[in-house]
Order: sequence, then structure tokens, then C-alpha cells
Amino acid sequence: MKATGIVVEYNPFHNGHLHHLEQSRVKTDSEVMIAVMSGNFLQRGEPALVDKWTRTKMALNAGVDLVIELPYAFATAQASDFAKGAIFLLDALKCKSFCFGSEEGSLRAFLHTYELLTENEASYNLAISTLMKEGISYPKALNEAYKLVSKDVSVPLVDLSKPNNILGYHYIEAAQMLHTQIQPKTIQRVVADYHDDAKASETIASATGIRKILFDDNDLSAIKPFMPTTSLDALNEWQSTADSFGSWERFYPLLRLIILRHTKESLAQCAEVTEGMENAIWNAATTCITFQPFMEKIKSKRFTWTRIQRMLTHIYTEFTWKQLREIELPTYIRPLGMNQKGQAYLQSIKKDLQLPLVSRVAASKDNKLLQLDIKAANLYYLGLQSSYGQQMVGSDFRIAPIRI
Amino acid sequence: MKATGIVVEYNPFHNGHLHHLEQSRVKTDSEVMIAVMSGNFLQRGEPALVDKWTRTKMALNAGVDLVIELPYAFATAQASDFAKGAIFLLDALKCKSFCFGSEEGSLRAFLHTYELLTENEASYNLAISTLMKEGISYPKALNEAYKLVSKDVSVPLVDLSKPNNILGYHYIEAAQMLHTQIQPKTIQRVVADYHDDAKASETIASATGIRKILFDDNDLSAIKPFMPTTSLDALNEWQSTADSFGSWERFYPLLRLIILRHTKESLAQCAEVTEGMENAIWNAATTCITFQPFMEKIKSKRFTWTRIQRMLTHIYTEFTWKQLREIELPTYIRPLGMNQKGQAYLQSIKKDLQLPLVSRVAASKDNKLLQLDIKAANLYYLGLQSSYGQQMVGSDFRIAPIRI
Repeated sequence: MKATGIVVEYNPFHNGHLHHLEQSRVKTDSEVMIAVMSGNFLQRGEPALVDKWTRTKMALNAGVDLVIELPYAFATAQASDFAKGAIFLLDALKCKSFCFGSEEGSLRAFLHTYELLTENEASYNLAISTLMKEGISYPKALNEAYKLVSKDVSVPLVDLSKPNNILGYHYIEAAQMLHTQIQPKTIQRVVADYHDDAKASETIASATGIRKILFDDNDLSAIKPFMPTTSLDALNEWQSTADSFGSWERFYPLLRLIILRHTKESLAQCAEVTEGMENAIWNAATTCITFQPFMEKIKSKRFTWTRIQRMLTHIYTEFTWKQLREIELPTYIRPLGMNQKGQAYLQSIKKDLQLPLVSRVAASKDNKLLQLDIKAANLYYLGLQSSYGQQMVGSDFRIAPIRI
Repeated sequence: MKATGIVVEYNPFHNGHLHHLEQSRVKTDSEVMIAVMSGNFLQRGEPALVDKWTRTKMALNAGVDLVIELPYAFATAQASDFAKGAIFLLDALKCKSFCFGSEEGSLRAFLHTYELLTENEASYNLAISTLMKEGISYPKALNEAYKLVSKDVSVPLVDLSKPNNILGYHYIEAAQMLHTQIQPKTIQRVVADYHDDAKASETIASATGIRKILFDDNDLSAIKPFMPTTSLDALNEWQSTADSFGSWERFYPLLRLIILRHTKESLAQCAEVTEGMENAIWNAATTCITFQPFMEKIKSKRFTWTRIQRMLTHIYTEFTWKQLREIELPTYIRPLGMNQKGQAYLQSIKKDLQLPLVSRVAASKDNKLLQLDIKAANLYYLGLQSSYGQQMVGSDFRIAPIRI
């Protein structure tokens, strides 16, 4: 069976995701679609709207055949490590190709860009570090440096100021660096701008836009046009049992407690906390009662909002620089759910897998990366501050991969 | 002006405390009554019912002239260190005497007991450690060892199985060990048994008993007979602003979060966590949704309930063995409140004080012990999980000593 991989967060699953899924299947002519999906914390350094099980259900109901958890250490990492973890897993799962959504839409442009930056690596990196010394953020420095090295190039290149293009670039880089045979493909996103919080069309809105509508209106019917019925049903079911959606606004009282238990010195040991941000974070926590003012207080032109949120995620989960530095590649394949086709595929490749297949976490509970996933899941549930959240602690040990 | 010191928690202030206060003043013929009072966490390893400012108001309204905070590191310590911190402060405050309530009531018995145990220190300690190796708790071992060394003694001795007698013993020991001139006095408690949770009389109940009534009935009118009106008023005011009373039941979801952020190894670095208790605590937190079952799961005949609660307090406040071992004696005098007489007294001794007087914490914010007090206060307020609690974070910097 021919399988294609996609890298997803599905926070929540919407019509744009459905389009990507269906087009990926067509474009690659694949029987099996495998999604590597983040757990309860996401790459933007945020708790997910709903837990990984609910998002797995959304994925399966929409036609994904097999959902594999991207371990916490990669799911919450900067783009290059996020991509490395995801592509490594898709390759380990014997996918023939992976297909990512991008603002660009043409693979050629990505390959040209990868070639250009590899050839000019030294001057590109020098430009980045020079620019960062002026106090601008990493993504801005990347962008400026990219303009410099690409200014006289005639072949089509990717606009690396677009978030999905950046991720796509890193997928291609990861596939190269890991010496995989997996074939990259790309599909143009139907929502042009990830940050777009307006309704792009009658039926398509970005996940960010959907979450904004949901939190602003506090009404699931407002997001109904933008997602399959099965996704909406899953959100409805979550709301009725879990009592609250995951967000930093919701988690903030706990994050605040955690920050104020730290000294500034010990805060600086949390992964990604750097350049005196421990002071800004600690000071803001002493005075700010809600999340938005807290973020306004600590934001800095040196760091993107996303990067700061990743610091907060690692503070919240007690994930340290030391742990971050020890991480190399995923060390297991953990299915969160599958349909019959996904199950048959997994059966067919089982004997050739180079990584252990973790269906019951109890059997692999000494695996350090897996312990992080379990811990992050537990802390996510406690962050919900609801009776359901309290009950879901330890659920990784109780919930078997979902089968539909 | 002649001053006498008392060591209090006032959790909450009740008629038995009033009796002790008035009798202490009479017995010592003192003009000024100074209370060294715990902050927001108590010696039994619990969050206080109401914060230190509310308890200070109760004390002042009942006739205490000056309230001084016993720093967190001593307020939540085992009896000998608790006593050492308190007596050191009363001595530093130039008190001529201190007067403690005890089940015993006769100072002579305390002095005899102190003499006996000092003379037989080696055999007493040997007996304790031998008994503890059999797996019984420290207080039980003390008690058994005490029976051994006192069995042929004819002078009156103190029954060291009673909690206030134990504390009293440690006050006397501290006064001796610190080479103070401060005179000990004792008054028999009108509630015979600290652990008594029934109503001992129409107007007297222990603080433990009062808290039990309060939490069981959830009705302040039920405890009205047992306390001065001003105390009840203060509790009423607290309830209407703070929304909840401090208790482990209330704090448990946050404690659980904190425990599950730890590894078992790092839990063992929290003060007082010893002998594999980190495993018991971590495992119980993964499964227990409320505090009582959690405690039932980790209780052990090696440790008293109180000792386990102290472990939890230190886990909650991130207070480590390393910090505990570095602590020697209080390093400042922090008034929480005073009446005019207390203020005049403080004025009169001010120039002779050996310790800095901290009226504004901002000026002493680098003091490590004071940082612990501020942190413990903040975490207490966050533990309340109410809007008031969120607002009270940092209040140590904003609230001046109360004056009435």
C-alpha cells in the first residue's frame, strides 16, 4: 500500500484541512494518508483548543487513515526541529511522499530556495547573526538575510516571510538532512495568510481565525460554516464534557503560579528562555492578572509572540534547556488512532519498523520522550481547571488508540 | 515598657486565644503584648484559613499590641526550628518574658523535663534513632524514648505526647540554646486537647475544631459562639472578598499540577521529602482527584500527617532541602500590625534592635528569608483560585503594617 504523510495540528480540523487532505491524496495517488499530529501543546507555544484524542477523532472522521503523535519535544520546537521530528517519523512510517500546504504552491521554488541557501550557507548565517545583534527577531533577521542572498537570483524562489512557506522549507531541509528517500510535494493553501483572522470565504477560514471567532463569540454555531459536521460534533462533545477550551487565557492562573514558584535564576533554565527574558516574565507575572496584559508586558522586538509562547509552554511543563539539548530524533511511533485501512497499513509495515510501536504507553513508560508527552498531556488537562480535566490526568495509560 | 511575647497562629483567633492573651498579660504583669505570628502557611503544613493581614486584624482587635511575622522558613518548620525562630524574634524584640499555653500548665515540670533530657541526651537520642529504625514516626519514637529515660524520675515531668507541651518544651529549649535572658511562663490551656474536634464547652473550641465546623457546615454563624465578634467580622469580611478559605482541599488542584510537573527525582529535592516519599506523593497525585484520598494514599506509619503536610507545603512553595539547610535564624523583624501602644514600644526599642526592622518590604527585597515570605504569600493567594487571590499577588509590596 502506498502511503503519503502530512504534518498537522488540526486545532481544530476545518475545511482548509479537508481540502489539503483530499488534494494530497489525489496529488500523490496514495491509498493511505498518515498524519503526524502534535499532542496537547502546539508549535505556536499554545495549549490546543481540545485534546489530542478529540483532534484524532476529527482527523479520522475526515478521512485520515492513521494518526501518529508528534512527541512534545518536537511539536513545541522551533520550525527546523518541528520539521525534523515530523519528517523523520513519516519516513520511519515508510511513507513514499509527504505533502505540505504552502502559500507558495510550487515545489520547484522550494527546491531552488533550498539549493540557494545551502550554497550560500556561510554568508546567509553571517547575515542572520549580524542582523540579530541589532536586536531584531530571528524570523525578521532570516527574512532580511534571505533578501540579501537572493537579490540577484533569477529562478523562482519562495517568499520566506510566509509561515507555511517557512515550515515547508524546513520539511524539505529535514528530508535532505536526514538522507530520506521520501518525496516532498506541496499544495497551495486556500487560505492565503495564516494570520488572517477574517473570514476568507464562506466556507474557509484559518484555524487561528476559527479560534478567534470561537473565543470572541463563545458560540460553536458561529464556526459551523468552516468545518465538517464531524469536527463540529467533536467540539460540541468536548465542550459538554470538558467544560472549557484550552487557551493561555484559561491556563494563565496556573502559569502565573508556576512562574512565581520559580526564582528568576531557575526560570532561565527552562527551554528557550534566554537573554534576560526570565526577568521580564517573572516581573510581568507579579503584576498581571490575565494573559493578554502579561504578554503585552513581556513582548519584545527581539522575540516573536510565538517564540515567547514557546518559552511559556516549556515553563508550564518544566521542560529545560538541558532536556532540549539532549533531544535528537523521535524514538517511538505512537498511533493515536486509525481506521481499518490505517490498521492494515500498520500491520503491513510492522515487521520492518526501526522504531518501537507504542500502543500501550505503560510498556514504554521509561522512554524519556514519551514521559514528556504523558506529562504534557497531564498538565494540559489540569490547565483546563475542570472536573473533566482532573479526571483525564493519567489518561495516556488508559486510552487505547482510537479505531473507527 | 515591659513586654511579653507569645507565639501564635490564630487560625482563626478564638476565645481560647483570648483567654491565653489576657492571662499572659496578667501573669507577667506586662504593658505590651507582642505576638510572633506565622504568615500564610502554618506549622501543621497547611495554608491558613485566612491570610496574615486578616489574622493580624483579629489579633489587634483582641488586644495584641504588636504582631510580628514569623518567617516562612520557621513557621513551617518542625517544632524545634519553629520554636527557635519564634523565641529568637521575641528576644530580639526585648521581651522580658514569653508565655505559652500548654496542657501541662506548670513551668516547673517543663524545667525538670528539659534538665532530664539534657542530662540524658545521648541515651535519649540513641533510643529515638533505634526506635525509628523500627519504622515508627518521629513523634512516637520521641514519646517512647522519653518513657524510657523518665521511668525512674520522681520530680513532676511534662507529658510529651501532648502537642502544646511539645511546643512548650521546644520554646524552653530554644531560650536556653540561644542563651537568652527571656523568662518562660506557661498557662494551662482551657481546651485540653488540641485535636479535640468537638465543642469543649459553650464558648471554647480549638482552632482545629472551629475549622472543622466551618468546613463541614460552610456557615460562619456555626462558629460564632467560639470567638470574639471582631474575629467573626474579620472572617465574614474575608469570605465576602476572598471568595474561599485557605485549605489543602481548595489548593489541591494546584498542588497536583505542581507535583506532576516534577520528576520523582526532583520532588526529592523539596524540603522534608525523604525516604521514598517522593514516589508515594507522585504516584498518588497521578490518580487522586481530591486531597483526602490523596493523603490517605500516601500516609505512612513512618510519618505523621503533619509531617507529610509540611512536605506538601514545601513542594507547593518550591522550598528545597538546600534552602532549608542554609537557614539559621531570622534576619529581620517584620511588623504586620500594631496599636498605639505597640507603636510606642517599637519606637522605644528601635535604636537598640540588632535586626533590621522591615516596614516596607521593597527596601529589603534582597533578603532571602523575606523573599520566601513574599513568595509563600503570593502562592497562598493564587491557591485561593479567586479573583481576589489573583489581585493580592504582590500585596506584600503594597500593604503597610496595619495600625489601629
